[in-house]
Amino acid sequence: MTPEHHHNLQLIANTIRALSIDAVDEANSGHPGLPLGCAEIFSVLYGDFLRFSPKNPTLHSRDRFVLSAGHGSAALYSTLHIAGFEVSLEDIKRFRQLHSITPGHPEYRETPGVETTTGPLGQGIATATGMALAAKHKGAKSPHSNNHMVVVLAGDGCMMEGISSEASSLAGHLKLNNLVVIYDSNDICLDGPISETFTENVGERYRAYGWNVVTIDGHSIPEVSKSLNDSRHSVTPTLIIAKTTIGKGSPTYQGTSDVHGKPLGRTESATTKQSFGFPSETRFHVPASVYDFFNAKYSTVTTPDYPHRQAPILPTLEAIKSLEIKPNLATRAISQAILQTILTHCPDFIGGSADLSCSDSTFMKLGGILSSSNYTGRNIKYGVREFAMAAACSGLAIEGLRPLCGTFLTFSDYMKNAIRLAALMNLPVIYQFTHDSIFLGEDGPTHQPVEHLAALRSMPNLTVIRPADITETKAAWIHALQSQNPTALILTRQAINDSLNTSIDGAMAGGYIVKQESGSTLDFTIISTGSELSLALQVANSLEAHGKQVRVVSLPSFELFDAQGNDYRQSVLGRPGQFVSIEAQSSFGWHKYIGSDGVAISIDTFGLSAPAADLATHFGFTETAITTRILGNK
Amino acid sequence: MTPEHHHNLQLIANTIRALSIDAVDEANSGHPGLPLGCAEIFSVLYGDFLRFSPKNPTLHSRDRFVLSAGHGSAALYSTLHIAGFEVSLEDIKRFRQLHSITPGHPEYRETPGVETTTGPLGQGIATATGMALAAKHKGAKSPHSNNHMVVVLAGDGCMMEGISSEASSLAGHLKLNNLVVIYDSNDICLDGPISETFTENVGERYRAYGWNVVTIDGHSIPEVSKSLNDSRHSVTPTLIIAKTTIGKGSPTYQGTSDVHGKPLGRTESATTKQSFGFPSETRFHVPASVYDFFNAKYSTVTTPDYPHRQAPILPTLEAIKSLEIKPNLATRAISQAILQTILTHCPDFIGGSADLSCSDSTFMKLGGILSSSNYTGRNIKYGVREFAMAAACSGLAIEGLRPLCGTFLTFSDYMKNAIRLAALMNLPVIYQFTHDSIFLGEDGPTHQPVEHLAALRSMPNLTVIRPADITETKAAWIHALQSQNPTALILTRQAINDSLNTSIDGAMAGGYIVKQESGSTLDFTIISTGSELSLALQVANSLEAHGKQVRVVSLPSFELFDAQGNDYRQSVLGRPGQFVSIEAQSSFGWHKYIGSDGVAISIDTFGLSAPAADLATHFGFTETAITTRILGNK
Repeated sequence: MTPEHHHNLQLIANTIRALSIDAVDEANSGHPGLPLGCAEIFSVLYGDFLRFSPKNPTLHSRDRFVLSAGHGSAALYSTLHIAGFEVSLEDIKRFRQLHSITPGHPEYRETPGVETTTGPLGQGIATATGMALAAKHKGAKSPHSNNHMVVVLAGDGCMMEGISSEASSLAGHLKLNNLVVIYDSNDICLDGPISETFTENVGERYRAYGWNVVTIDGHSIPEVSKSLNDSRHSVTPTLIIAKTTIGKGSPTYQGTSDVHGKPLGRTESATTKQSFGFPSETRFHVPASVYDFFNAKYSTVTTPDYPHRQAPILPTLEAIKSLEIKPNLATRAISQAILQTILTHCPDFIGGSADLSCSDSTFMKLGGILSSSNYTGRNIKYGVREFAMAAACSGLAIEGLRPLCGTFLTFSDYMKNAIRLAALMNLPVIYQFTHDSIFLGEDGPTHQPVEHLAALRSMPNLTVIRPADITETKAAWIHALQSQNPTALILTRQAINDSLNTSIDGAMAGGYIVKQESGSTLDFTIISTGSELSLALQVANSLEAHGKQVRVVSLPSFELFDAQGNDYRQSVLGRPGQFVSIEAQSSFGWHKYIGSDGVAISIDTFGLSAPAADLATHFGFTETAITTRILGNK
Repeated sequence: MTPEHHHNLQLIANTIRALSIDAVDEANSGHPGLPLGCAEIFSVLYGDFLRFSPKNPTLHSRDRFVLSAGHGSAALYSTLHIAGFEVSLEDIKRFRQLHSITPGHPEYRETPGVETTTGPLGQGIATATGMALAAKHKGAKSPHSNNHMVVVLAGDGCMMEGISSEASSLAGHLKLNNLVVIYDSNDICLDGPISETFTENVGERYRAYGWNVVTIDGHSIPEVSKSLNDSRHSVTPTLIIAKTTIGKGSPTYQGTSDVHGKPLGRTESATTKQSFGFPSETRFHVPASVYDFFNAKYSTVTTPDYPHRQAPILPTLEAIKSLEIKPNLATRAISQAILQTILTHCPDFIGGSADLSCSDSTFMKLGGILSSSNYTGRNIKYGVREFAMAAACSGLAIEGLRPLCGTFLTFSDYMKNAIRLAALMNLPVIYQFTHDSIFLGEDGPTHQPVEHLAALRSMPNLTVIRPADITETKAAWIHALQSQNPTALILTRQAINDSLNTSIDGAMAGGYIVKQESGSTLDFTIISTGSELSLALQVANSLEAHGKQVRVVSLPSFELFDAQGNDYRQSVLGRPGQFVSIEAQSSFGWHKYIGSDGVAISIDTFGLSAPAADLATHFGFTETAITTRILGNK
């Protein structure tokens, strides 16, 4: 490295320091510790290593950067500004303000140059693993090489989170040599020194995962540069352990947890700037030579780009509609039949499971298994790593693939915050959650979901669909493939009874009438979903035998139904009468449709280990028990 | 080891094999792979290593055994039976049947000798870490030594899960040398060979955590015995990597994933029994010498026991009630003030946080920090390991401590399935979840909970309390300390306004009237919780200025309110009129109280990064906006 280049990079680093502490001070909120501690890393990344085009931030061949330690956002925004992305000084001054493009943590789609939403610790590493895997998969399938790097900056917190362990084990297994994690190892976390919490040997752990590991001085520009350049030639993922001083430059707070997450304040900011030779009273100062550096860099560099392929979606939907499937299968099996069709029609579609593909029915026989010797495989075996799987799927979706992943509905718990980030990012990830009620049977309450539908239905931007039969499962998939948001498919382990009156259009509207009342009066409206719909129809017949007028509504998706106009919703649920819900999960959330005096036939306790038929009797999910209960209530 | 002892242990192992495959066949459901593969391990554990008293299965000084790979339950039940626990052959025959004591996965309180509920993979290791930590903590505080061991049997799935990484890193850091994990390393998981998913070096990873690691032949009784006996003298936790053959003895299926989770069937069971010299057609056969072995063992061994201390709870409750606290603090700060009182009154109380104790306000200044050199500390620094923290707290609670743990409410997502297991086990763990709404402000949507109250409220056995002020926060703690179930305290980051009319009794009833309507008619009933209660009272005043009659109900806990009698609930919510809820989270679940036509003032999208006051305006959480909306709706 020439002395001049080193000088430029050091000036860039100090500019990042100055801008970051000013942004945090201006907001009176934020985290100065990481920006001060990682300024040289950002400087080398954007000034030396990463290939990108600031005016074309979504260029496919660019290197990706993921700030897994998302609380260090001030450093990222400062860097993006000086590197020429569409982030202005005014944006930096509006750090953490309403509707600014510089929110508290990096948010996908909000800021040019931000590749994914981060903040919840550890997840950036897992999402980046998905992004690196997408590059391998697309590169293996395409005539163009796709050899960009995915570089992550992570802190001690990310390293302590289990999800980073899962993802890093998987990345090592899959030999994702296009993945680099820079570990900002400053020995300090929010609550104090890591000597109180975290004394393992991280480098040895990563070597055990099969990674290339180097330890460097994170403030040495040549060492940062060399370690990154070496990573381009590694045959495995690379962990760069960058020893840094948190809050470097702050005379009072550097090296302590006090600098992690609180503004320095004007006085300390001034003395901090003095420490690295910046004017102490000038705020939001960017030396002209820093702008010149990046202007020169991007006036000369041109980066080739490759077209991104869009999957033809309409033929897939038509093929699903016309698919013939054996009657009365479990909805998981129906979904698996549909999946084989999607596989052949939709080249960007890629499946996977957390060690349950033969049970959650996500395996696509003709797809091949993705491995380090065959990145074209369409089935990803994530291992028993649900959380990393979900976050990796967000990475796959960010890169334009259409990922599906599967596990049992109960274990959606393990994935929850990654599903949330996919929803926040509006990523069309599809989750296939099977074994969707106590009726999975003998595995018992640890495996029987009860509250999980409520937990998922309450999440913004996520569409939850619990189809009742072949027709509705087709509708669920048609929605999922067309959606720009994540979709959770909720499917049975056990065989179901297909219904005669279900419809694709009705299911895609979220709710519709599957059995009209036969007379002019209406005693009961029974609303049901999934495997309980056929039971609801039996109960309706039974009630009619008692002289009652009954309507049955299938409500496979609360979200899709709520999105309909009031007239439509009224046409389905608007007639007065006693409302009854039948769903073998918690009643929580159902009273929106059945009212406070509605009868919820539900499971509001944990389940039990027993054969499904015994559970149906025990929990009152039989035609006779429900009929009696409804009539008794009236 | 004498040849006779070896012979006995091998016969025990084969008896476990035979009983287990018979149990699975009889149920036509279950997992034969682990019982066949780990029979020698079970045999050595119960026949040689563990100190226990089968007729006194909760003896405090016993060694604990945790089957983290809970799907291998048939082996555990078979072993407990032959070792003399109150598990009969009839119980084994009723494996996985309704109300049997031999459910599909081991369940705490259901079966003598089962120490914790397992099945969701990885969690057994984390719960066992809590149990081992409890032994260290209690041992350090008590004049009696408490030197029992906690032994875990875990499989590949447990090892892949992030929670086991978190827990094992923590156990290594805390030098829990009373913890042993036997890793059933059979190279097969449910979905196939682990060569497809899991090729890291687990032993090296555990060495990086600071564990003692040995690799043995898991079918060699002397090797299993020696490795376990050596672990009693280790100064660190021990990982025993036991190489085994899954399904060992099954001529057709051993060594393949086909034997993991499906019954062998009668024919294969017969040939399997033949392979280890058991009568092929006799089912549920236990050789008399096996019973004799354990009868002899437990007629001669007496194990000393130590009294378990019960914390005096009433003085704590009185002290909380009489505590003086500065007005209008954030509820997290109120809770922290209460915590200091609990610390001094309740010796079994132990706190902790996932690296946020200075922010989630769980730190107890006079409690000291627990460390490997001071196990008496009352603050556990779990590091950024939320999931392991939650599962470890279950382990602490199982051992009779009263654990509290804290993080931000959003990160309850990371802990969710461990909270669920605590609820399923009826363990009185207390979760302090702070930063409970968008009003945490600038950190933005990744940190702002929206759907989390719904997710927690829908969980059976968990009591969720969102107190509004000092009085209600005291009530929340009084409930939590008296409860036999887990409690989630939902607390603000921001300062709140104390209310004049809140009451401890009312809050402990879950819901109550804090402002009666002034006239004989009733236009609006406003129901609110937490930081929004003071806003609700302002809105009520504003509506009354418009000539409306308004009642305001504080509803800090759905679960506690639902547990009241109908008369009480009617007295609070029974008067007709328009219902309105005000809570800065999802409306999901609220319609049970406000009806399908109720007005929910709620946050049903993700939040935004901005100062709290700007968010209040943007999301319509102001007196003026809400008043206008309510009047417009009427």
